[in-house]
Amino acid sequence: MSILGIDLGGTKLAVAVFGENGAVMYREVIALGNREGETVGELIKEQVKRYLTSEGRALAAIGICVPGIYRSKTGTVWAPNIPGWDDYPLLEEIQKVAGDVPVWIDSDRACYILGELWKGNARGCRDAVYMAVGTGIGAGILINGTVLRGADDIAGAIGWMALNKPFKTKYIPCGCFEYYASGKGMARLAGEIMEALPGYNGTLSQIGAKELTAHHIFSAYEQHDEVAIMVIKESIVFWGMAIANLISIFNPEKIILGGGIFGPAARFIPEIREEAKKWAQPVSVTKVILEQSEMGGDAAVFGAAYLALSNIKTPRSYEIQ
Amino acid sequence: MSILGIDLGGTKLAVAVFGENGAVMYREVIALGNREGETVGELIKEQVKRYLTSEGRALAAIGICVPGIYRSKTGTVWAPNIPGWDDYPLLEEIQKVAGDVPVWIDSDRACYILGELWKGNARGCRDAVYMAVGTGIGAGILINGTVLRGADDIAGAIGWMALNKPFKTKYIPCGCFEYYASGKGMARLAGEIMEALPGYNGTLSQIGAKELTAHHIFSAYEQHDEVAIMVIKESIVFWGMAIANLISIFNPEKIILGGGIFGPAARFIPEIREEAKKWAQPVSVTKVILEQSEMGGDAAVFGAAYLALSNIKTPRSYEIQ
Repeated sequence: MSILGIDLGGTKLAVAVFGENGAVMYREVIALGNREGETVGELIKEQVKRYLTSEGRALAAIGICVPGIYRSKTGTVWAPNIPGWDDYPLLEEIQKVAGDVPVWIDSDRACYILGELWKGNARGCRDAVYMAVGTGIGAGILINGTVLRGADDIAGAIGWMALNKPFKTKYIPCGCFEYYASGKGMARLAGEIMEALPGYNGTLSQIGAKELTAHHIFSAYEQHDEVAIMVIKESIVFWGMAIANLISIFNPEKIILGGGIFGPAARFIPEIREEAKKWAQPVSVTKVILEQSEMGGDAAVFGAAYLALSNIKTPRSYEIQ
Repeated sequence: MSILGIDLGGTKLAVAVFGENGAVMYREVIALGNREGETVGELIKEQVKRYLTSEGRALAAIGICVPGIYRSKTGTVWAPNIPGWDDYPLLEEIQKVAGDVPVWIDSDRACYILGELWKGNARGCRDAVYMAVGTGIGAGILINGTVLRGADDIAGAIGWMALNKPFKTKYIPCGCFEYYASGKGMARLAGEIMEALPGYNGTLSQIGAKELTAHHIFSAYEQHDEVAIMVIKESIVFWGMAIANLISIFNPEKIILGGGIFGPAARFIPEIREEAKKWAQPVSVTKVILEQSEMGGDAAVFGAAYLALSNIKTPRSYEIQ
């Protein structure tokens, strides 16, 4: 039995054929280029057609990870970074070419935690959270072995977590937590701090406000740059508070930190844990394991495959409504 | 078929016999008086023995709600307001007298949402939250029809939610959200505000700091007392932020507000909704229904009975591990 896992990102499509035990039989990455709308759908359909028979073995199922929201009731996708995908009928389109092979779709955050559950740090867990911090922030949440979906498939939108009263209008586009502690937020905060420090002429002042990214901040931190130190100190507080809230609410076995920022921010996990410890339910916080994802960018494509595999094997272990 | 529901509170025991359809066949409330430890267990056992045969019909199951944490792996209870119940073997004790009748136990917050699911505002819901605000704060959380337990049965400890950075040591005993916005927190905040307003001689200044309760604040609010107005305004912000976080994380159909404070705070639900709307994931917040519990103090005893009923009917619909 082989499974096709497809991870659609904002700029590329990762495709992999897996054996039932998780062995990668084939994989490739295709740049989306300037494809948008229908043509992104066509690209995925081409891949499905191409792999329907893989090394002489028929596919048992297809799993697809999408960068946004999968509306399980309609089979449609909202993906903010793919123009024209406001409510794209992905399930229907893929079923046109997949024939009898079952197709399962879910959001990137759901696939991250499923990938970790299958082959990463969440193996053997019933209750675990994957906190993805990149350009934005979101969470894949496993509860008693099942991914949390919510009534409209939008659960896990933790970038909107309220952590810093009073409300400021600048939080409107992305939410309070994401405003401060996403990759974009860290760069923005560095800009704000530099404006308030007119005498500052450190590394970060050499980079234009528009070019500045979180990765510049991590590099500047290595050189003891004062702005970078302030930004990272502030981010640790926000990450710690958000993680504390996940701990108090879910009492999980593990919280796995991933996305582009964890990455370089993983070295601060001890400090983040200290901050979380101040705020969280005191028993739950001593029990939880906090660690970096070891799957990196692979969690999503593994998760897509496991989404399909677990549904065909035991439909109840990972329910799609 | 009849079901025995038992709701153990900090000061009293509510006992009710239910028909399968939820009809209350008999109910009574017994004050705990100065019972503690073993003698509280004995009282519950007496009730179980007494109702094992009820109106000639044998009990089909027994459900018990406890004011604290039910440790499902050991069958023991931690109940902070019952001296001696740090790890009380309630399941084992009740099974001694219950014979073949199955016994199910869960925390008050789990029972609140189960009571609402059976006979209250959560009827027909798959994803709903009961936020209990009384002396303390906690939540019963229903996910895809199942109550969220967490790895150590401590999920839903939302009183620990981090909402107001930076951390202050005064949050240590109870958590940030509970510090400000529980009944106890409201009284404490009123005291803090009065200290900072030496000229204040309104209604609340007549009440000693130790006697002051949230109910005095709600009464004083009716008389446009300035301190009461400030406390309630602040509480609305905290309730709104916490509810926003529950909405962004869970994307629930409903959030039901209960406990002693909702109650009188229910008239502020429109203002709380406005505050939540500022912070929460914008799609989820437009979909969620926010309303007061209509079951009042009955949610727990109904929930205890439904805990038992749903387990004997379809063990999978409400899992106990």
